[in-house]
Amino acid sequence: MLSEQIKITLSEDELPKQWYNLAADFQGAMLPPLGKDGKPITPEDLAPIFPMNLIEQEMSTERWIDIPEEIRGYLKIWRPTPLYRARRLEKALGTPAKIYYKNEGVSPAGSHKPNTAIAQAWYNKQFGIKKLTTETGAGQWGSALAFSCALIGLECKVFMVRISFDHKPFRKVMMQTWGATCVPSPSMETAIGRKILAEDPDTPGSLGMAISEAVEECMQSDDTRYALGSVLNHVMLHQSVIGLEVQAQMKKVGDYPDIIIGCAGGGSNFAGISFPFINDRMHGKDIRIIGTEPEACPTLTRAKFRYDAGDVAMLTPLLPMFSLGHTFVPPAMHAGGLRYHGMAPMVSQALREGHIEATSVGQVECYEAAVLFARTEGFIPAPETAHAIAETIRQAKQAKEEGKEKTILMNWSGHGIMDLKGYQAYLEGDLQNYPLPDELLERAERCMDGLPMP
Amino acid sequence: MLSEQIKITLSEDELPKQWYNLAADFQGAMLPPLGKDGKPITPEDLAPIFPMNLIEQEMSTERWIDIPEEIRGYLKIWRPTPLYRARRLEKALGTPAKIYYKNEGVSPAGSHKPNTAIAQAWYNKQFGIKKLTTETGAGQWGSALAFSCALIGLECKVFMVRISFDHKPFRKVMMQTWGATCVPSPSMETAIGRKILAEDPDTPGSLGMAISEAVEECMQSDDTRYALGSVLNHVMLHQSVIGLEVQAQMKKVGDYPDIIIGCAGGGSNFAGISFPFINDRMHGKDIRIIGTEPEACPTLTRAKFRYDAGDVAMLTPLLPMFSLGHTFVPPAMHAGGLRYHGMAPMVSQALREGHIEATSVGQVECYEAAVLFARTEGFIPAPETAHAIAETIRQAKQAKEEGKEKTILMNWSGHGIMDLKGYQAYLEGDLQNYPLPDELLERAERCMDGLPMP
Repeated sequence: MLSEQIKITLSEDELPKQWYNLAADFQGAMLPPLGKDGKPITPEDLAPIFPMNLIEQEMSTERWIDIPEEIRGYLKIWRPTPLYRARRLEKALGTPAKIYYKNEGVSPAGSHKPNTAIAQAWYNKQFGIKKLTTETGAGQWGSALAFSCALIGLECKVFMVRISFDHKPFRKVMMQTWGATCVPSPSMETAIGRKILAEDPDTPGSLGMAISEAVEECMQSDDTRYALGSVLNHVMLHQSVIGLEVQAQMKKVGDYPDIIIGCAGGGSNFAGISFPFINDRMHGKDIRIIGTEPEACPTLTRAKFRYDAGDVAMLTPLLPMFSLGHTFVPPAMHAGGLRYHGMAPMVSQALREGHIEATSVGQVECYEAAVLFARTEGFIPAPETAHAIAETIRQAKQAKEEGKEKTILMNWSGHGIMDLKGYQAYLEGDLQNYPLPDELLERAERCMDGLPMP
Repeated sequence: MLSEQIKITLSEDELPKQWYNLAADFQGAMLPPLGKDGKPITPEDLAPIFPMNLIEQEMSTERWIDIPEEIRGYLKIWRPTPLYRARRLEKALGTPAKIYYKNEGVSPAGSHKPNTAIAQAWYNKQFGIKKLTTETGAGQWGSALAFSCALIGLECKVFMVRISFDHKPFRKVMMQTWGATCVPSPSMETAIGRKILAEDPDTPGSLGMAISEAVEECMQSDDTRYALGSVLNHVMLHQSVIGLEVQAQMKKVGDYPDIIIGCAGGGSNFAGISFPFINDRMHGKDIRIIGTEPEACPTLTRAKFRYDAGDVAMLTPLLPMFSLGHTFVPPAMHAGGLRYHGMAPMVSQALREGHIEATSVGQVECYEAAVLFARTEGFIPAPETAHAIAETIRQAKQAKEEGKEKTILMNWSGHGIMDLKGYQAYLEGDLQNYPLPDELLERAERCMDGLPMP
């Protein structure tokens, strides 16, 4: 049985020709982002930060948006990605469930992030932009943008949270190999960086500080813009290729998912696999769609739906989203890509409208799941991906208890071979969970007091 | 043009059903391996180290050998691998040449090594073996065997050269994630290890020492055997899937290579892509087949064809091969996979019979080529792979000078994202070449004085 088909592949011609935009199909209209004055922001307000062609996508409610042929050309470097049947994991679990995973780890940067990095770089290039700035925490997004800028021909500057910069020297080398500049944040290269360093020369940095520096630098120059790897509507749009490909792949084998699972940080990889299926669900398909987050950063499961800023310094517009508060600093767990305080407004709305569910997992369970996955399926997952695997295993075990032959689909968002430190801690028994007491979350929320309410 | 087809793929059904054995087609018979007494060794001599089913393959001159269906099932985890048309690299070089590369970096361990690791683990399991021992230098082979043993259900113990063990802590974690034990060599766990440490407690270790330890440990137990990742005939056999797939892929696009290039260390990845084409060449095809090695370890280009041992301690049989001498220690260049003193006997015979050519490259040119590749094609190559890229670029430039539309095929043996230290050195201008003076090579050869001559 184990020599039966494992990978369901598509030809390059079958790469989607359009992105799917869930904004066209929500029951209620999406709430607008707000400026400092509490009024909805206009395209012009965003123009110093993003090129107008991406701002149009950000605000679009068109259901289908054409993928430019040149972008498809770049995506073909690694897409369509294979959909795997996890036969060996199924066997190890003794479950009657069928488990499929979409392997987004095959991109040059190792995760799903290049799906939007390529698109953003291309639209900026079309708009005449010469340089992109961004921030990165764990390094996945910075790597993806560096790769994309190298191929498309843009300068790229990445502000990397200082503690990650120091702990993961090879992420920096990876970005430099693709020609990007990578500096530790806070840096002496921006006013806000100098201000922070003057007050605390030894700060480990944070994603909020790095965003502030990247935005400040982009605003210094007419031909420079800023790129964000998650949260925004156009990022969710670009990631929809994942779910659209899966729909075609499932059709090829005559199967269809009962349960869809993705890990949720800012929301982009969860949205990527699930949004096209939410459309199916609106048309009557019986599917459970589950976003799984760390119990150490429980945005969907424990935070309130609020207007909040995307960064500590509140330089970004206020977004309607589930947020732990823009000053929330999650514990030092290994899944750096899931440590964001907020959640994409579109994912937030999908939860509020009941299209999706949310669960959380502690990191010990995640690494246990990841190691089982590596030893059965072969590929070593990213710590973020491990959250989706843990929830998948929970569901597969439940199917076993119930004796039901369910079909489970998981987004395998990236490989973990640049992030083996967490595996080391797990294997040495030196890993802990970080459940958060209610008081701590309530305290974190207070930074949102006084902000406009949705 | 750049959105034209990039990847030529095969379905799982098109994975080869047989391995190709070049030993059936050599003009002369292969010289036998010799024992310490200078007499040809028998299968029984090898039985304490390898299982009999692999010894039969090692000595076979059958042209086609069936790939067991279960092994095909494991290979399908990542095979068939895509053949890429390097359109963006071609454009950057302005060459009329068409460049294809076979991407063997998509395996869970990141290189072509699992092609034989899976097969060796499976045959050992069939033979009733419970545990495999091996050595690893850079870590690619140890990772591949750890991955294969995890899936097939064998214990795995890897002796990793101490200096690599200390410099690359995450290779060890990778192997441990797959359940293998990885110890620095020399270790206190073997008699030879204890002896070496008693004489020199601070030794950095060497591949020769690590082989000795792995062989010693395997001989302590009836249900333990040793596995080698290159050099031997059955390894070349298992790697032939690479070239056989390329033949099918080239046929799909109606193309055929004029020049085939692979990097050459022990010879397995070069053999993998080229041996099926040597068969074509024997049947009249006009192809140049080039093995490219580091100028710091110039086995094919500057060494003599001799009988020599595979390890420093001369525990292995004597093999007929181009060898720099079993005591040769190459300079500290980054392509750890190309630092072996010898060359596979089959590759050696292919050179002697004129089927292949050999070139060498300095490591500065290799990293220059690798960075250009990463910035045009996206994927970051392994330092070993960079040698094949450098030679490919030389040939593409020559085609440009000559105005000839040649088709160049290269084996992209693995990705380099676990080995970014060399990129760092290159980008910081801190990288050098290691040309070797004749006297040094002549001195190294002397350890072979008195060994039987072919």
